[in-house]
Amino acid sequence: MPVQTDSPPLAALYAEVQQFYARHMHLLDAGAAEEWAETFTEDGVFAPPSAPEPIRGRANLTAGVRESAENLAAAGEVHRHLLSMVAVEPQADGSLRVRSYAQIIATPREGTPRLHLMCVCEDVLVRESGELRVRERRVTRDDRPDLRPGTA
Amino acid sequence: MPVQTDSPPLAALYAEVQQFYARHMHLLDAGAAEEWAETFTEDGVFAPPSAPEPIRGRANLTAGVRESAENLAAAGEVHRHLLSMVAVEPQADGSLRVRSYAQIIATPREGTPRLHLMCVCEDVLVRESGELRVRERRVTRDDRPDLRPGTA
Amino acid sequence: MPVQTDSPPLAALYAEVQQFYARHMHLLDAGAAEEWAETFTEDGVFAPPSAPEPIRGRANLTAGVRESAENLAAAGEVHRHLLSMVAVEPQADGSLRVRSYAQIIATPREGTPRLHLMCVCEDVLVRESGELRVRERRVTRDDRPDLRPGTA
Repeated sequence: MPVQTDSPPLAALYAEVQQFYARHMHLLDAGAAEEWAETFTEDGVFAPPSAPEPIRGRANLTAGVRESAENLAAAGEVHRHLLSMVAVEPQADGSLRVRSYAQIIATPREGTPRLHLMCVCEDVLVRESGELRVRERRVTRDDRPDLRPGTA
Repeated sequence: MPVQTDSPPLAALYAEVQQFYARHMHLLDAGAAEEWAETFTEDGVFAPPSAPEPIRGRANLTAGVRESAENLAAAGEVHRHLLSMVAVEPQADGSLRVRSYAQIIATPREGTPRLHLMCVCEDVLVRESGELRVRERRVTRDDRPDLRPGTA
Repeated sequence: MPVQTDSPPLAALYAEVQQFYARHMHLLDAGAAEEWAETFTEDGVFAPPSAPEPIRGRANLTAGVRESAENLAAAGEVHRHLLSMVAVEPQADGSLRVRSYAQIIATPREGTPRLHLMCVCEDVLVRESGELRVRERRVTRDDRPDLRPGTA
């Protein structure tokens, strides 16, 4: 009987990570604050370079997106978050370290789209109840390479 | 005897969808009108926000790309269609609902490339003779969020 | 006993190619010249449209990236290479022909990111010691469609 190997484990993982990020960013850009926050762990941390402190926990993550969505609506702008060049590094503890590039595209109503920010995104993803979730995210802006998340 | 599961079905599907879109957009951007139209079903529908009515069927799809390609050649511009953040949702009937972001990049000869349009692309893909094809496509521009495809 | 097919070969290959490119571009954009050159074969060739001759071999590839990295550091700019719409065509000899779009994003310190160049990237990838490597790369700029790599 042939050995049953876990056939393409990278392929399965890679597709799952890409699908996860697609839904995750669709939620973010739609302003679906609570659903987006649920793609983090309960105590998930998001360290954007523009915040003085990392944002911790789903309630704060939800509040942050809700505020951003209101500001964008008031400004008449749509933002899109596009991740690319996604490198997935499985860790011994089962978590995934993922490094990617993030383009943030801003489009004003009746206006011209622009590349608003170019960033590097470093995530720790974990599996909970079968689903991938972000436990930790650190984002660095290319225009402010010296500005470390959480130290602004 | 071990159970033979369909090992990573999402992975297989996800890779196939990405490969499909890569070839599909390479054809479009090369102005290969007929070959591109063949990646739709015979009665495939493409509803861009800029058209007063959805474009129906391969003959019309071919004619549309041919006209666009001629206009771009006359203007000395190259357009590229880049899909990202691709979320694939298999449906009970075997079709796939796919939501993605589309950047359209325009580059004039000897000029500077620019992000021409930022869009959301919603496709229904089906399988015919083993190949994926677009049965339905609806595209929304971020600069005109209220403009529904086919209602312009 | 059921036949053991190579379950999703495209999926495995596709994920591996994407992961390869992600790491490859992270190395390039970090200015990790030697590590980047090691993702080419020993006699690998890179034909950018801006060079009068193709760059051949790891020593020259390393030198080229080192020089670029120094120039970028002096200019206070970060460059990112983003591949998308990746079409993988396995060849009879086991190599892979891969065609993709490349956005090169430039961000000055404290400045606004811009789409610096839009290119098409045509690679031949081969496997050495289990790892994918670039044996040949030809890049064409959309703003100079008539300029063939190596003929500038």
